[in-house]
Amino acid sequence: MQANPILVEQTRGNVVENRHRGAFVVVDATGKVIASAGDVARPVFPRSAIKSMQALAMVTSGAIEKFGLGDEELALACASHHGEDVHVTGVSHFLSHVGMGPDNLECGAHQPTNAAAREALRKAGGVPTPLHNNCSGKHSGMLSVARALGVPTAGYVTREHPVQVEVRKAIETVVGETLSVDRCGVDGCSIPTWAAPLSAWARGFARMATGEGLPDELARAATRVFDAATSHPLLVAGTGHLDTLAMQAFGGRVMQKGGAEGVQCGAIRHQGWGYALKCDDGNMAASQVMVATLLLELAEPDAAQRAVLERFATPTIRNVRGLEVGVLRATEEMRG
Amino acid sequence: MQANPILVEQTRGNVVENRHRGAFVVVDATGKVIASAGDVARPVFPRSAIKSMQALAMVTSGAIEKFGLGDEELALACASHHGEDVHVTGVSHFLSHVGMGPDNLECGAHQPTNAAAREALRKAGGVPTPLHNNCSGKHSGMLSVARALGVPTAGYVTREHPVQVEVRKAIETVVGETLSVDRCGVDGCSIPTWAAPLSAWARGFARMATGEGLPDELARAATRVFDAATSHPLLVAGTGHLDTLAMQAFGGRVMQKGGAEGVQCGAIRHQGWGYALKCDDGNMAASQVMVATLLLELAEPDAAQRAVLERFATPTIRNVRGLEVGVLRATEEMRG
Repeated sequence: MQANPILVEQTRGNVVENRHRGAFVVVDATGKVIASAGDVARPVFPRSAIKSMQALAMVTSGAIEKFGLGDEELALACASHHGEDVHVTGVSHFLSHVGMGPDNLECGAHQPTNAAAREALRKAGGVPTPLHNNCSGKHSGMLSVARALGVPTAGYVTREHPVQVEVRKAIETVVGETLSVDRCGVDGCSIPTWAAPLSAWARGFARMATGEGLPDELARAATRVFDAATSHPLLVAGTGHLDTLAMQAFGGRVMQKGGAEGVQCGAIRHQGWGYALKCDDGNMAASQVMVATLLLELAEPDAAQRAVLERFATPTIRNVRGLEVGVLRATEEMRG
Repeated sequence: MQANPILVEQTRGNVVENRHRGAFVVVDATGKVIASAGDVARPVFPRSAIKSMQALAMVTSGAIEKFGLGDEELALACASHHGEDVHVTGVSHFLSHVGMGPDNLECGAHQPTNAAAREALRKAGGVPTPLHNNCSGKHSGMLSVARALGVPTAGYVTREHPVQVEVRKAIETVVGETLSVDRCGVDGCSIPTWAAPLSAWARGFARMATGEGLPDELARAATRVFDAATSHPLLVAGTGHLDTLAMQAFGGRVMQKGGAEGVQCGAIRHQGWGYALKCDDGNMAASQVMVATLLLELAEPDAAQRAVLERFATPTIRNVRGLEVGVLRATEEMRG
C-alpha cells in the first residue's frame, strides 16, 4: 500500500501559496523500511544524487590506482560543484593526473553556480568553460575510467561507451537491480541517467554505507568514496550549500547529495541506513526542506547539527527589496 | 464537489520526471462555470496576473485624465515587462508625465528579465535601477494615483496608503468580493497582494471583459485597460514571451497575463469568459503549459494562433549542450 506523500508548503503572509508533494524512503541494507512516504516504487531519475555510485567505476576499473588519484579527486567525482576556485583548480589537477585536459570534457559549459565566482569570472572578462560545469569532476573521473580501460575517450558520455557500461555495472551491483534501457534518459551533462524506484536507490546507499550484500572490492570502494566525500564536503558542493554544511556538521556520519529536479540521496552511516527522496514537481528548495526535515527526524542530530539542518528545513522567502514575505516548511505530518 | 486537478508532466526519455498539479476555472460574468479542474475555492495570491485590475485605479482616481496618460502608459501599468529598451524608455516617460522620477519608485531593482537587455546593461557597465524592475510600470501607475488623489507619494506601497486603498476598492468591485486582511501578503515588488479563490479572479476577468455587473465608469475603464494591453502586447511582457505572443496572435480577442508562482489569468473577450489558473507548486513553465492548453481548447484558435499556443503547450526540455532530453506537456485529461 502506498503511504501519503510528504507535503512542503510555502507561505506568504498567513496563506499557503505553493504546495510541493514528494516521496521518500529510508531503508537498511536488507531493504527493511525504516520510514517512508509517498510512492517509492515509481521510477525516478536520480540525476546527480548518485555521483558517489558512478564514482565506484574509478575503483573497479583500476583508475584510482593507475593514476594515483586521491580523496580530493574522488570527492570531486562525487560533486555537483559550484565553480569556485577550489573546484576549478581541483578539476584541472585531476585532468592533468590522467593526461587529459578541459577539451576532453564532454559535459558542456555553464556559468559557475556560486554567485561570487560568477561575478569574478565576469569581471576578469572570462567565459565559462567545461571546467566550471558542476559535473566536471564526475566527467574527469569518467575520463580516468576510459584511460584505465585503455579505450578511446571520445564519446565517453554515450550509453554504449565502455565507460558508461562500467558505470552502469557498478550501479546495478550496488542497487541489486538491472537498469532498463526503457528507463534511460540523457542527463544535463549528457551522460545517461537511469530511472529506478526510490526504494532501490535508498537500498543502494545503505549497502554502500555498510558493505552488506556487496562484493568485498565494491564494499571497500564504497567506504573509500563516502570517506572521501564526507571529509571534503566543500569539494562536493560549495560555500553555503546544504550538502556541504550538513556533511561538515555530521563529520563523516552522513553522506548527503542532491540531484537536479528535486532529488536527494544519502546515507546515515552510523545507523547503516540509506535514503532517497524526490519532490514530485522537481523543486530543489522544497526537496532541501524535505531532506533537512528527514535528517532532523532520523539522523540523531546534536545541537550544532540541528542548527544547520533547521536553516534548510524552514528557509525564509524574501522579495526584491529583501523583505521577509513567507517561509517554506514541511507540514506537521512530516515533522512528526 | 472538487474536480480532479489538472496535471502537467515533464518527461525525460520515456519516463515522467516531474509532475505538476494545478487548478483552473473558466466562467462567464454571472459566474457560470464553462470549464474547471482542481480546487478553485482555495485562496490564491494572483500576484502580477491582475495588474489590469490594479490599473483600474488610474481611471477611478482621475489620474488618466489629469496627466493625459495614453494607452502605452496603461499597457505598462498592466505589465510584467522584461526591461528591454522600449520598456525602460516607456516607464521613464510615464514617470515624467506624472512629475515623478525613478527615485520615487518603491519596487526595488532587479536585473532585466530579457537576456539581451541584461547583457547590454552589463556591457555598458550599468547596474539595474527600479526602472528595470518588471513592475515599474505598475508602480508608475500607482504614483499617478497618489498624485491624482493629492496625497504624499512616499510609502505608497503600504496596505494603508490611500493608493492601495483605492486599488483594493477597484479590485473588490470587479471581483464582487471583500478582500480580507487575513489573506493579505507582501508581493515581490512590496505592494499588498490579496488572496481570493480562482473562481473570484475568473469572474472578475469575465466582468471586465463584458462590463456586466460593473458600474458604468468601471466597465468603460475595464474595456479601455484591456484594449490598451492587447493593442500593446510587447509592452505587457517582452520579446518571445507567451503573454506577448498570445495577445499579438489573438489581436484583441484574448487578454492574457501571468503572475509569479504559477498564476495565469485572463479573458477570452469574444466569448465573454474570464479564466484563472494556478499551478499548485508555483512552477511558471508548467503554468504556461496549462494556460496554453486551456486557450487551445477554449479560445477557438485559428491556425496561426494554434501554432503560437502549441509552442508553449509542449515546450522542449534541453540540457547544457542543447540536446533535447524531454518535453513538458499536459496529460490527456486536460488536452480533452
